[in-house]
Amino acid sequence: MSDQLTAAVVGGSGFTGGELLRLLTGHPDFEVAQATSRQYANKSVGSVHPNLRGTDLRFSAPDDLASVDILFAATPHGVSMQHIDGFQEAADTVVDLSADFRLQTADQYDQWYDGHERPELLEKSVYALPELHREDLPGADLIAAGGCNATATIMGLYPLFQAGILGGDEQVVVDVKVGSSEGGASGGKASSHAERSGIVRPYAPITHRHEAEIEQELGLRVSFTVHAVDMIRGASATCHVFPNERVTKGDLWKAYRGSYEDEPFVRMAAGGGGVYRYPEPKAVAGTNFAEVGFELDPRNKRLVVFSAIDNMMKGSAGQAIHAANIALGLEETAGLDFLGLHPVGAP
Amino acid sequence: MSDQLTAAVVGGSGFTGGELLRLLTGHPDFEVAQATSRQYANKSVGSVHPNLRGTDLRFSAPDDLASVDILFAATPHGVSMQHIDGFQEAADTVVDLSADFRLQTADQYDQWYDGHERPELLEKSVYALPELHREDLPGADLIAAGGCNATATIMGLYPLFQAGILGGDEQVVVDVKVGSSEGGASGGKASSHAERSGIVRPYAPITHRHEAEIEQELGLRVSFTVHAVDMIRGASATCHVFPNERVTKGDLWKAYRGSYEDEPFVRMAAGGGGVYRYPEPKAVAGTNFAEVGFELDPRNKRLVVFSAIDNMMKGSAGQAIHAANIALGLEETAGLDFLGLHPVGAP
Amino acid sequence: MSDQLTAAVVGGSGFTGGELLRLLTGHPDFEVAQATSRQYANKSVGSVHPNLRGTDLRFSAPDDLASVDILFAATPHGVSMQHIDGFQEAADTVVDLSADFRLQTADQYDQWYDGHERPELLEKSVYALPELHREDLPGADLIAAGGCNATATIMGLYPLFQAGILGGDEQVVVDVKVGSSEGGASGGKASSHAERSGIVRPYAPITHRHEAEIEQELGLRVSFTVHAVDMIRGASATCHVFPNERVTKGDLWKAYRGSYEDEPFVRMAAGGGGVYRYPEPKAVAGTNFAEVGFELDPRNKRLVVFSAIDNMMKGSAGQAIHAANIALGLEETAGLDFLGLHPVGAP
Amino acid sequence: MSDQLTAAVVGGSGFTGGELLRLLTGHPDFEVAQATSRQYANKSVGSVHPNLRGTDLRFSAPDDLASVDILFAATPHGVSMQHIDGFQEAADTVVDLSADFRLQTADQYDQWYDGHERPELLEKSVYALPELHREDLPGADLIAAGGCNATATIMGLYPLFQAGILGGDEQVVVDVKVGSSEGGASGGKASSHAERSGIVRPYAPITHRHEAEIEQELGLRVSFTVHAVDMIRGASATCHVFPNERVTKGDLWKAYRGSYEDEPFVRMAAGGGGVYRYPEPKAVAGTNFAEVGFELDPRNKRLVVFSAIDNMMKGSAGQAIHAANIALGLEETAGLDFLGLHPVGAP
Repeated sequence: MSDQLTAAVVGGSGFTGGELLRLLTGHPDFEVAQATSRQYANKSVGSVHPNLRGTDLRFSAPDDLASVDILFAATPHGVSMQHIDGFQEAADTVVDLSADFRLQTADQYDQWYDGHERPELLEKSVYALPELHREDLPGADLIAAGGCNATATIMGLYPLFQAGILGGDEQVVVDVKVGSSEGGASGGKASSHAERSGIVRPYAPITHRHEAEIEQELGLRVSFTVHAVDMIRGASATCHVFPNERVTKGDLWKAYRGSYEDEPFVRMAAGGGGVYRYPEPKAVAGTNFAEVGFELDPRNKRLVVFSAIDNMMKGSAGQAIHAANIALGLEETAGLDFLGLHPVGAP
Repeated sequence: MSDQLTAAVVGGSGFTGGELLRLLTGHPDFEVAQATSRQYANKSVGSVHPNLRGTDLRFSAPDDLASVDILFAATPHGVSMQHIDGFQEAADTVVDLSADFRLQTADQYDQWYDGHERPELLEKSVYALPELHREDLPGADLIAAGGCNATATIMGLYPLFQAGILGGDEQVVVDVKVGSSEGGASGGKASSHAERSGIVRPYAPITHRHEAEIEQELGLRVSFTVHAVDMIRGASATCHVFPNERVTKGDLWKAYRGSYEDEPFVRMAAGGGGVYRYPEPKAVAGTNFAEVGFELDPRNKRLVVFSAIDNMMKGSAGQAIHAANIALGLEETAGLDFLGLHPVGAP
Repeated sequence: MSDQLTAAVVGGSGFTGGELLRLLTGHPDFEVAQATSRQYANKSVGSVHPNLRGTDLRFSAPDDLASVDILFAATPHGVSMQHIDGFQEAADTVVDLSADFRLQTADQYDQWYDGHERPELLEKSVYALPELHREDLPGADLIAAGGCNATATIMGLYPLFQAGILGGDEQVVVDVKVGSSEGGASGGKASSHAERSGIVRPYAPITHRHEAEIEQELGLRVSFTVHAVDMIRGASATCHVFPNERVTKGDLWKAYRGSYEDEPFVRMAAGGGGVYRYPEPKAVAGTNFAEVGFELDPRNKRLVVFSAIDNMMKGSAGQAIHAANIALGLEETAGLDFLGLHPVGAP
Repeated sequence: MSDQLTAAVVGGSGFTGGELLRLLTGHPDFEVAQATSRQYANKSVGSVHPNLRGTDLRFSAPDDLASVDILFAATPHGVSMQHIDGFQEAADTVVDLSADFRLQTADQYDQWYDGHERPELLEKSVYALPELHREDLPGADLIAAGGCNATATIMGLYPLFQAGILGGDEQVVVDVKVGSSEGGASGGKASSHAERSGIVRPYAPITHRHEAEIEQELGLRVSFTVHAVDMIRGASATCHVFPNERVTKGDLWKAYRGSYEDEPFVRMAAGGGGVYRYPEPKAVAGTNFAEVGFELDPRNKRLVVFSAIDNMMKGSAGQAIHAANIALGLEETAGLDFLGLHPVGAP
């Protein structure tokens, strides 16, 4: 154990922080040196995250950060940028899970958020998604884990760009369905069980901030709408794509296989038999997998792309660990080998 | 009570049949003369539909149809057309809830289904949706209740055509989310609780048959995709519309109010405060209301229209009763005054 | 309409207040003269209760109470007793839905709650449940609607006392399962969708306050435990009863029929065929019905009694309207004729 | 890898079979040599169990069993006993997950089931639960994994017997709540999503067969009732216990710690702070953990014991792997290290 790397999680009481702590606890190469929470300082991690009540981790206040090999910041948007100096002092490698360092320019940031305090760091940070940025991750100082809805969308559309099927000026509608864990651990009336169960609720009908990430990563403007539905984990993106040229199923299989066949965390599901014929959040719940699939709609000259992830995993904590593994030269899949459950609920 | 009209429900053991029986039982102007079910003949209606176990209705075999004022056929697609002569012998007014008489030409039918046995009846039948066909319903012999997903979509888009905002050649993507009651009462592995809970499942990614009805009623080709999500009742249509000309919120309010302000079963919900800012299936569960709303997305020159119905009510049995009320000269809202519940689950 | 009675709802923005407003809106003999809410004063009722957004009701502050025929207080425990004078000034008949006036003595109250401010009113109030107190309701000034879990339990056990099968010294375990609407509209972390979905959570393992009501109404001490499960509406009580003497199914049917066969809102469900063989919250969701049933377990000399209600209806607002109808000499079932839905979700 | 043990799963397409395949796939000491399914022979395992669609396993017909180190039979009750000779020919160690070999005498079996074909094997089989039978497992030929509801109950009550708090003649009521995965993968009307969502359904009001196992393992007759509730995985047992002597919390903590403090898969949860104060199925979903806790109810001289497991894991496949690890001399927790998720849905 003497050669294990030390890790800290700042903001460990939120949902994302809890997932990071779980993944790090089960990771062969990391030990958790610190888990911070101002609200729950000195309380056991298990009193907040019941799945961890068998561990002996305790929260500490975020005021004294331990010196660690890697620090994961699961702090809210706007908070990470305030504390980034402290984070970087505490650790050579910082993985931030907020939106603070995902966009590459202050202009972009200002357009979607409210003024960046440390704009000079934006171009230095690496967007975490390994399927797009595997080459940039080794040795990175500052890594920004992507947004969950953006990740689901990007995973679905990326091969179409790599293969030249899309160029960037096409009409693309992205209709996303997400679970309640996206809203975080803080509660509130709209996310109470009685008000939120069984819903199909347009919670971001237009101008969802993840549009900015998609545009940055793909060079494509998308018409983006997010609905909240009755699940806990999961983000499912249905991309209605209108290519300029005719495309065949063969073209599509070639494109997706070309991009993903060597990817350890991408599975194709496109119209086979059985109950689960296309990507579904249930099929990847609890895992770091993204599922991607498609159908052609010749009647409407449309290509429909489906992708599904667990927003807490591939869309957040799992993506962060995956990127950290690459950044630190570890086995890429270390700590991320859970296969998911069948059957599994909402999800 | 001597002036009550008599009604029969053929296919009374299915979900739609049960809703018809419930509505007719509570209707001031109808009494249920017959409820048929081959499988449950001689059993009490309450043994199948537990909400009706306080009534004394019993199923009879469908072989001997009583002579009634109105007959509702809740039989599967393809079955209604086989028995239509018997239905019309039994009752002057037949309301069919299957897809058999929704399309107006045999060509249309053949394109989406498998050959019509009584094509000469197609042009005589009236599509039930009162908001579009109120004038045609009084005295109609054969009424075809619309499909649930088509109804949700049509209710959302119709005012744009009435107001001239859409002409029929625009790009429109319709992304529908539906509950498990759409699958009917028969069960099956994919609809088992363990496999279906918590899903976002592309169950009709392309070429859903309700496209045909939408095209017929609106004169618009739509790119249509249906997802199954975790609710029981409800159909929610999100229409991503790309108008040819710039449109303002004022134009939209004018269009929707113009079409719907006198409609007893349409409510607008477009971005007010509170938890339920847009149309939601939960807000109309159990009722005959359709909720309609919209947002403008200038960045993408897009108009997003939301509509929500209870697929068993406005999308089926409620629409049928509403149309029957008009056809027979009754109070239009009779028997349909339930306001729905808050809070209410899935839904 | 000139002969309609006027009604006020104090505390109209909570779940119970919303149900009262819905029921009064659809009631043939009442019109809503006032709906109060301090938090939502001047806002439309529909902005809080989406099922009522077709009505034109608005909340007013509770400071100026209108003079009405009947006032329903849907205020929290401890608040009703503070304002009871004002309520009684405003209306000749007050129906309180809190726990403040359910127990008949200050001693009882002190044992389970924290000191009563108006103990002299306790013996004057009538416990609302019509199946037990129909005789006492006509002309009552102050009516206390029973607690939901107590109501479910009492409805299940009452016939055993009426028929002399239980005397009061028997061992009775009551294991209750309830939905999230019992927690009210205010939210909070434990009731957030992500934390509350899919649970079986012992939320009142011992000493639930409704024990006091059961003991008062039946003269029986019960071992009472309440679990929160994944539904919105509904309370289901399973009573494990160990009678002192041997009892037969015939005895039981006689007892339950004796108590309930003329009751308009009680249904028996005891082991028939079909999917819904026993009482289930889903079968009564949205309605004022209680379902009651039983099984004998000779191996363990046990009688198992099942009862199911909608906690918002028979367990609260519906019970209140039912009692009000009787108190004011109206048709007993007026405004309570909704039969419920099939299928219906959680519930 | 050359020193891995080979394993077969007979009946691999059911829910339990799928969990066995998942656990064996991720187990460091096993490789899956065969997964049988008559219905899905030659199809990929991933076409039935979507979480395994990244693996290259395929089902084979059960007619030719490979020779393996260990065979897991996930066949229905009554089927295992017919094929037990073939199973034992194929493998030195057989772990049966049906009810066929759980009871120790033919008399017991006949009382609860329908005649045993191989009664001579009953006394040779070992009941799998390691917390009770760890000593008997090493080298066992035939191991019978316990029933899920029995396991939940036994885990809750066992320490009371070990510590002498219960002797066997006490009154004990066990009220169990279970998820839909208990019903298996085959579907059916009562388990369809529309009929089963949001339920509290008494599905085994009396004489559930798992009473036999509890009686055998604890020497206690229990009044046992099982309710189906809205979750997928999970069994939660609430045991209402009436001890003959007064018992203190100190006695209880001592008893439970005495039995379980060295157990790798048991966690105590008895009234601490936070949202999850007692055992909950959600807190153990996907894991092999059992959670156990209690409260004292002096008013009713009652002890309430709560226990929660994942019925597919501790209640079935996880218990089987745990027992197999011990039987074959492997690390006891191998392959069972998943900590579960937070938050997680139904569950």
